[in-house]
Amino acid sequence: MRYVARNRPFIVRQGADHFPARQNWNAKYLQEVMRDQTVNVAITPHGNADSIVRLPDGEGMLFVKPYETEMPFSTVLQHIQDNERRSKSTLSPTTTDNAKAETTPKAEEGESRKLVYYAQTQNDNLRSEYASLFSDIPSSIRFASIALDAEPEAINFWLGSSLSITAFHKDNYENIYVQILGQKHFVLLPPVEGVCVNERAVLGATYAPVGREQREKGQDGTGEDVELEVEELHLQIDTPQTYTPFPTHDPSLPSSSTSISHHHYNPTLFSSLSQPIKVTLEEGDMLYLPALWYHKVSQSCNDEGLCCAVNYWYDLDFGGGFWSTAGFVRGIGIMSLGDKGED
Amino acid sequence: MRYVARNRPFIVRQGADHFPARQNWNAKYLQEVMRDQTVNVAITPHGNADSIVRLPDGEGMLFVKPYETEMPFSTVLQHIQDNERRSKSTLSPTTTDNAKAETTPKAEEGESRKLVYYAQTQNDNLRSEYASLFSDIPSSIRFASIALDAEPEAINFWLGSSLSITAFHKDNYENIYVQILGQKHFVLLPPVEGVCVNERAVLGATYAPVGREQREKGQDGTGEDVELEVEELHLQIDTPQTYTPFPTHDPSLPSSSTSISHHHYNPTLFSSLSQPIKVTLEEGDMLYLPALWYHKVSQSCNDEGLCCAVNYWYDLDFGGGFWSTAGFVRGIGIMSLGDKGED
Repeated sequence: MRYVARNRPFIVRQGADHFPARQNWNAKYLQEVMRDQTVNVAITPHGNADSIVRLPDGEGMLFVKPYETEMPFSTVLQHIQDNERRSKSTLSPTTTDNAKAETTPKAEEGESRKLVYYAQTQNDNLRSEYASLFSDIPSSIRFASIALDAEPEAINFWLGSSLSITAFHKDNYENIYVQILGQKHFVLLPPVEGVCVNERAVLGATYAPVGREQREKGQDGTGEDVELEVEELHLQIDTPQTYTPFPTHDPSLPSSSTSISHHHYNPTLFSSLSQPIKVTLEEGDMLYLPALWYHKVSQSCNDEGLCCAVNYWYDLDFGGGFWSTAGFVRGIGIMSLGDKGED
Repeated sequence: MRYVARNRPFIVRQGADHFPARQNWNAKYLQEVMRDQTVNVAITPHGNADSIVRLPDGEGMLFVKPYETEMPFSTVLQHIQDNERRSKSTLSPTTTDNAKAETTPKAEEGESRKLVYYAQTQNDNLRSEYASLFSDIPSSIRFASIALDAEPEAINFWLGSSLSITAFHKDNYENIYVQILGQKHFVLLPPVEGVCVNERAVLGATYAPVGREQREKGQDGTGEDVELEVEELHLQIDTPQTYTPFPTHDPSLPSSSTSISHHHYNPTLFSSLSQPIKVTLEEGDMLYLPALWYHKVSQSCNDEGLCCAVNYWYDLDFGGGFWSTAGFVRGIGIMSLGDKGED
């Protein structure tokens, strides 16, 4: 409760070691339990779900959402393990940071056409499409429910490879994040650093498949499973046009970095004052990620080529001054920049 | 803890009924226990300790502090009871609100020369000059120490009459305020309403006695007690000159009020948006007054002509974003006014 009151993060190391998931979950078990159940998967060319993509030749930027489709869980699992094998074979172990997700679209032509798969629907999926796995985790975290005076609004399952990066963003939720397989690497910024990430209303676009869509019979012969074979994605600007407020600058990257990336653009007068907190969640660790904290998340896989986590989202407390003053401070920050922070 | 986290006040009605002070304290008991102990007393012409006084003819305003001196407790008690008798004889019962404290210095000539006495040193006096009374109250409030994760920094004794008013101000403390005798009438504004009270750096002044100072022998013949006979006070600007940030507008007064008072001056663009909370503490009630809330306090006496309270101050939590964002919001408010809010 003191950490919630202060809006400050903490980690309980090994706090989730007693979750049955920690003992049970591995590639074989997940496949057996989920079998051919159809699940949602986010597909991107670079592992860049919900991110900023900088258009070539100074034509601005887009807020890019992944191509979302449904396929049997076993297919998703296979794709993710394939992704991780590709990651291992093409990248040296020392480059498992953010650089690979920051390739600009211009560089796309030169890259492998292989796409990146991430099971990451954040719609309470552990009580819907992943309900078969729900008995392996507690339905509620007792200390969190006491501190936050609430039961979870959503409980989510995340399965991906080290190719996927979640760009800096904030959520209007209190978050308990639990690592089950592999590692998650968080970079955290408090809400007051909104002025450092240069949050801007950015035109929305969504990845969409290019080429043939191939409908195949399900493996069990019922013909009800649908598998979409996607070979290439291109960006489509959403219609009607929408603008989403989103961080456009990543202050956690060293300014001396030689890699050219859109994340190095668009700093504000205050970006150099940012003091990012970097933490790694090991298997069994729990992170309290307070509401409105900006977080960037990358991941490392276990020996089976999997990174798997669950998280619990709770309503934030709108009853005090936190929500309104955080918004006021963010708004004043944006106002203070005028157009100086624009790309 | 939830209320502290939200920075929101509450009252525990009859929460202090078990304090021995509630049974023990009355004029006779206080006089017996304190006997001729010397105590600090704040003396003002209008009951206006720590307040804004508007100078005549548009010559600005002063932040005024009371004349502080020491005298035997029995003398202070007598003065306070005399004050209350005067209050009863010259004011109708329906005017026991703030109006009487808002007399401008210009009106002073026409008033009685009788001064207003208030025992209100806020320096942990219950563990120093009023230590003889300390055993009548708990040395710690258990729920508060748990919620605030602290023991009291200061525990104060307050004894005054209905002639004394404490003007709107804020304290950098968490506060548990406990009414023992009579009533306290609080008007409360959250920290975000700093822009409504038009907090300004105001030139400091202190009341000082006019005329003879008469040194008398103590009643017990030891000759060590000092009694200062004060007949009239005048304002002296502090040297060196100091400027204290202090609310210069009282948004809780009805704008339709016909009384001319400095508190009606100096509104800001936002003053009319203020939503004051008015609560009365009855004998035995406890108020949690959160850190940085503006509060104005007036009082009503019991049948013996006394209003007596104790309060517990706790360090506020500087560990989260509250302190810094509250200061930022207040600062932006002042900046936004420019000179428009100046008198």
